[in-house]
Amino acid sequence: MMQPTYRGAVRKASFAEMNCSVAQTLEVVGEWWTLLILRDCFLGIRRFDDFVARLGIARNVLTSRLETLVSAGVLERVPYDEARSRYDYVLTEKGRALWPVMNALRQWGDEWIFGAGHEPLVIEHRICGHDITGQVVCDACGERLDASAVRARPGPGSRFDS
Amino acid sequence: MMQPTYRGAVRKASFAEMNCSVAQTLEVVGEWWTLLILRDCFLGIRRFDDFVARLGIARNVLTSRLETLVSAGVLERVPYDEARSRYDYVLTEKGRALWPVMNALRQWGDEWIFGAGHEPLVIEHRICGHDITGQVVCDACGERLDASAVRARPGPGSRFDS
Repeated sequence: MMQPTYRGAVRKASFAEMNCSVAQTLEVVGEWWTLLILRDCFLGIRRFDDFVARLGIARNVLTSRLETLVSAGVLERVPYDEARSRYDYVLTEKGRALWPVMNALRQWGDEWIFGAGHEPLVIEHRICGHDITGQVVCDACGERLDASAVRARPGPGSRFDS
Repeated sequence: MMQPTYRGAVRKASFAEMNCSVAQTLEVVGEWWTLLILRDCFLGIRRFDDFVARLGIARNVLTSRLETLVSAGVLERVPYDEARSRYDYVLTEKGRALWPVMNALRQWGDEWIFGAGHEPLVIEHRICGHDITGQVVCDACGERLDASAVRARPGPGSRFDS
């Protein structure tokens, strides 16, 4: 385990003012821990104590992160024991829509950190039954996309000065 | 602008011990600011002062984040003024391979934060010439993938106890 650092304390307060979809997405999911909590949600974890046990996260930090995700509409609380106010935390449609983010993070780690043949998880496609990876393709022509194949320009919501 | 909070200071020191590709990817790109620096790299920004001007990031924090990315092999330093030790910061192949992460973050923000017709950026596909979005499809059968279409199981690099 690396030594704790002070790096977390020098961050900017918020990306909320940035007119950028990447920044706005990070405003919701970019907190330390949040993407790992969502990873566990995609793996079927729903209960507070299960997140604690799997992640080794402090309970007050987990409470804060779950509240952020519920407030953002990414998770919803579903009571399973109303008498004791116990809840499952379940991905909403907005939360399930983060799957491409999660998948891209996993695939990059599989390829560039662990390497072929050392993947911690294998992903099976329920439809075709194969062990698969996701490829990003153009929704217009179907060709595979990468950084060199696309060009960004200001969109209808742009407030760029340039 | 939101008020500064102490939340950044209570994070765990490192995800480095976790046998998970998502955690390992976040170990490289999960620091506050890092994904926004990489966003700018994908938009063609290469110089220290340009990152500072666009992001409003403190110079010492930027220095630290760039060093992490160079150490991880995601960026490389390319001298443009050797006499003054000035460098461009350029994505390596390993860095360009993060494009699906960046694209997924942007598309989620476009859809769920800004909404259709309010996207800050439009992405044009150089090959087919259309304004496009990326779709994640199965590399085996070509069908579109989402969270419900896939199932994860322990892979060859698994160290799960269960």
